Amino acid sequence: MTKPILIAGRWQASFGSDTFCAENPATREPLDEFPVSTWEDCELALNVASSAFASRLVNDWPPEMRHDPAEFAAFLDQYAARIEARKAEIVEIAHCETGLPISPRLADNELPRTTNQLRQAAAAAREGGWALPTIDQRNNIRSMYGPIGPVAIFGPNNFPLAFNSVAGGDFAAAIAAGNPVIAKANTSHPGTTLLLAQEAQAAAEKIGLAPGWIQLLYRTSHEDGERLVSDPRIGATGYTGSRAAGLKLKAAADQAGKPIYLELSSVNPVVILPGALEERLDDIANQFSTSCLMGTGQFCTNPGLLILLAGDSTERFLETVVTKFKAAPAGTLLSAGVAKSLTQGISSLIRAGAHTLVGGKTGAAKGYSHANTLLRASGQQFLEAPEALQAEAFGNASLVIVADDLDQACQVVDHLEGNLTGCIYSHTGCADDAAYDKLATRLRPKVGRLLNDKMPTGVAVSPAMNHGGPYPATGHPGFTAVGIPASLRRFAVLQCYDNVRPHRLPPALRDG
Amino acid sequence: MTKPILIAGRWQASFGSDTFCAENPATREPLDEFPVSTWEDCELALNVASSAFASRLVNDWPPEMRHDPAEFAAFLDQYAARIEARKAEIVEIAHCETGLPISPRLADNELPRTTNQLRQAAAAAREGGWALPTIDQRNNIRSMYGPIGPVAIFGPNNFPLAFNSVAGGDFAAAIAAGNPVIAKANTSHPGTTLLLAQEAQAAAEKIGLAPGWIQLLYRTSHEDGERLVSDPRIGATGYTGSRAAGLKLKAAADQAGKPIYLELSSVNPVVILPGALEERLDDIANQFSTSCLMGTGQFCTNPGLLILLAGDSTERFLETVVTKFKAAPAGTLLSAGVAKSLTQGISSLIRAGAHTLVGGKTGAAKGYSHANTLLRASGQQFLEAPEALQAEAFGNASLVIVADDLDQACQVVDHLEGNLTGCIYSHTGCADDAAYDKLATRLRPKVGRLLNDKMPTGVAVSPAMNHGGPYPATGHPGFTAVGIPASLRRFAVLQCYDNVRPHRLPPALRDG
Repeated sequence: MTKPILIAGRWQASFGSDTFCAENPATREPLDEFPVSTWEDCELALNVASSAFASRLVNDWPPEMRHDPAEFAAFLDQYAARIEARKAEIVEIAHCETGLPISPRLADNELPRTTNQLRQAAAAAREGGWALPTIDQRNNIRSMYGPIGPVAIFGPNNFPLAFNSVAGGDFAAAIAAGNPVIAKANTSHPGTTLLLAQEAQAAAEKIGLAPGWIQLLYRTSHEDGERLVSDPRIGATGYTGSRAAGLKLKAAADQAGKPIYLELSSVNPVVILPGALEERLDDIANQFSTSCLMGTGQFCTNPGLLILLAGDSTERFLETVVTKFKAAPAGTLLSAGVAKSLTQGISSLIRAGAHTLVGGKTGAAKGYSHANTLLRASGQQFLEAPEALQAEAFGNASLVIVADDLDQACQVVDHLEGNLTGCIYSHTGCADDAAYDKLATRLRPKVGRLLNDKMPTGVAVSPAMNHGGPYPATGHPGFTAVGIPASLRRFAVLQCYDNVRPHRLPPALRDG
Repeated sequence: MTKPILIAGRWQASFGSDTFCAENPATREPLDEFPVSTWEDCELALNVASSAFASRLVNDWPPEMRHDPAEFAAFLDQYAARIEARKAEIVEIAHCETGLPISPRLADNELPRTTNQLRQAAAAAREGGWALPTIDQRNNIRSMYGPIGPVAIFGPNNFPLAFNSVAGGDFAAAIAAGNPVIAKANTSHPGTTLLLAQEAQAAAEKIGLAPGWIQLLYRTSHEDGERLVSDPRIGATGYTGSRAAGLKLKAAADQAGKPIYLELSSVNPVVILPGALEERLDDIANQFSTSCLMGTGQFCTNPGLLILLAGDSTERFLETVVTKFKAAPAGTLLSAGVAKSLTQGISSLIRAGAHTLVGGKTGAAKGYSHANTLLRASGQQFLEAPEALQAEAFGNASLVIVADDLDQACQVVDHLEGNLTGCIYSHTGCADDAAYDKLATRLRPKVGRLLNDKMPTGVAVSPAMNHGGPYPATGHPGFTAVGIPASLRRFAVLQCYDNVRPHRLPPALRDG
């Protein structure tokens, strides 16, 4: 029985007749069947979302701003509580669809992170500072950020809860900023998304959000996806996923003048300087291996590119890492697609000149899997094929570049494209400081988040976080996908009130 | 003798051999001759700007942020003072090139506005709050906005000083945010831009900015313009000008993943409700006429579309306005191009069904000019050709839409595309409040700045100003081109520091 989509506040059959099945990547067994939506589903969702947005009716607000932040906050809190109440079922299905372990990953880390994000977004909506209300009494001009309209959200495969299109960071930000959401499930975990959307819908009904404030589709054609993000009724789009698909959506949205926030790809360069290796080789080898292999390497901030300077300590370091990569069990990959593209990614790194230090073979664990893989190339090789050697191989594989010297390492950094993160490990004294200075000057403009002495895989939900970075890591270097309140401002427009009568102003812009 | 371009801190000959002449629009006499740059000029400018940006060397700053805001602030202040010292010469040449009156327009309004903007930007750079520094001590994560890199600025024809690519709001914002500028003069006032750039360069030398921090070209091919805004060495672009040219630049920049902030076009709808007309018809007719005709209507916020409800007071209002349009002298238009496109714009409004209440003929004043023109169409006509009847006719022409009733007026507003401003005049009591509510709900999401009882032509340099709006008024609804500090954040990237050692942090992100 094909599962229903959520449109206009009702679970109903898709107009589409094509279907696809979810799959358990650990057993390769098919799971439930879901509809592929046609444009008719999208059209309906767009109409409902734009009507819902236009009809915001909260009586004590002026008509041009009939939004009650408290209502959205109450919804987000209610939704978080409902997710917790249904936790066992949600993490079970997420585990089945993604192969990610229930504990600690899903139950102890990702689900609490998800509810925490929803609650932080609720608090931000209530508090209101995210909107940067600005009052110029002398000129009687006032401005703040307001909602942008229906937000389409495309979630990634690797966080079935915390980046889920109907429960994750983009969702929380879009709702807290006052927008309806049209969620497009990631097709590798549609059942998880359905369960979450059930709770979202129940919370919306309980709070009394307009029907259709939250809607869910599972899959569309690429063409319909492009049409959706560029539709006049859409306010903006949030997308996390592959670079190829994301760039097609970006082109469509850009052409229509519709904001789109994309998180596309990142190899997250990590530089380890000689003084740090002399000082704490084992500790860093441990940190690096753990960071590379956790979640079977399927993090946007996975350290995919390690840059080292040639020398004895580098060779010892790599031997240690190779041992750890061999010893660590390989995990199950998220899907057949991830396994295939990892194999292809590793092959193309090898074609570009890298050689395998460890791993390189598929099928090392249950279901879709690949042996933990570490590749190596020289700085010279990197400089000869910088594009090919910094292509992301998403999964439990990383590439080490061994540069001849600091100057060559600097050149390698100069050839990097935009990344989410960049990290430099250095001696705890000042032994590496001159080298750090040269490298950091070059690395800073290439990355959204610069780290010292710490692997990039942890992305704290902190007001100071930037989970963003220069193109092509994301579509715009001024926005973050994680971190409240800044992430809310992606789904907002700047609205100015010039000489508007006091009773017609949003409460946050009134005097006193 | 062809004028020099400013590259690498030196006034030198362009590589290009083609030239163009500035022209006095009041006399149609040719003025000085300027070079058309080839790609070689652009290439040189890009290399110099990116080197200058990479080599920011201020000793007490950490290498990854070697920017001294005080240096940029000192430059902006110094530059403002130099503009004032050369005021007579600057306003004289701006007058010759644009036909705009020396007094009060250039000398008493626009030049003081320009130096005020430069000084406000200096104060913002010094104060630093624009960068939204955020410190999360618990997680030891910190972030703030930092400079984005070389900014290309394309200035408009209608503000030779306050929006000049080498002195105006975009310039002040880009410099205050810490970026080098490659300015492309508007070709209708290259001599004014040259004079300003001389003072900018002199101020840069006095303060010791890296050579080539500010560079100036006058004209490029469209192809080279597109190449410039999408070049890897460019950080971002600021553009104010025609929609057609802007959209080509946007397509090129979007494809390369380069931020571009565009101010494209706007008809700035003004709705006057019956109660307001009953109450203060003459006053509003006076405000409207003045706003339409000031600067010969050549403002981005000129009220180009007036929406009225059918009725006696509307007829009386229009008679009054027609009288004022007839009585007011027509001004000289900025250039042959503006005159031509105004004539074409009026013709296409007429082809789309509008008829002329007053004006409609070219050549009503000295040089390039056009009679003050008011056109009229019905709400029904507008709804049948909404695209054609909201096309901007830049200059001293406006279109009145007389709707049958409030519902039809609401439909007209529903068919508007994105605009910079939208205004509603209503009865000072509550007679129009129900109508206001219906209209404002629809108008708010269409405009960047919503006004009450006030014409949109004044754009105060206020921290609460939004001189921006939904596409196609601009390229992104979250940013303003006027208003400090917000305008600085267009030319910035979000930079996060995770576990970075204290002495390596930008001062604004250190503890205490």
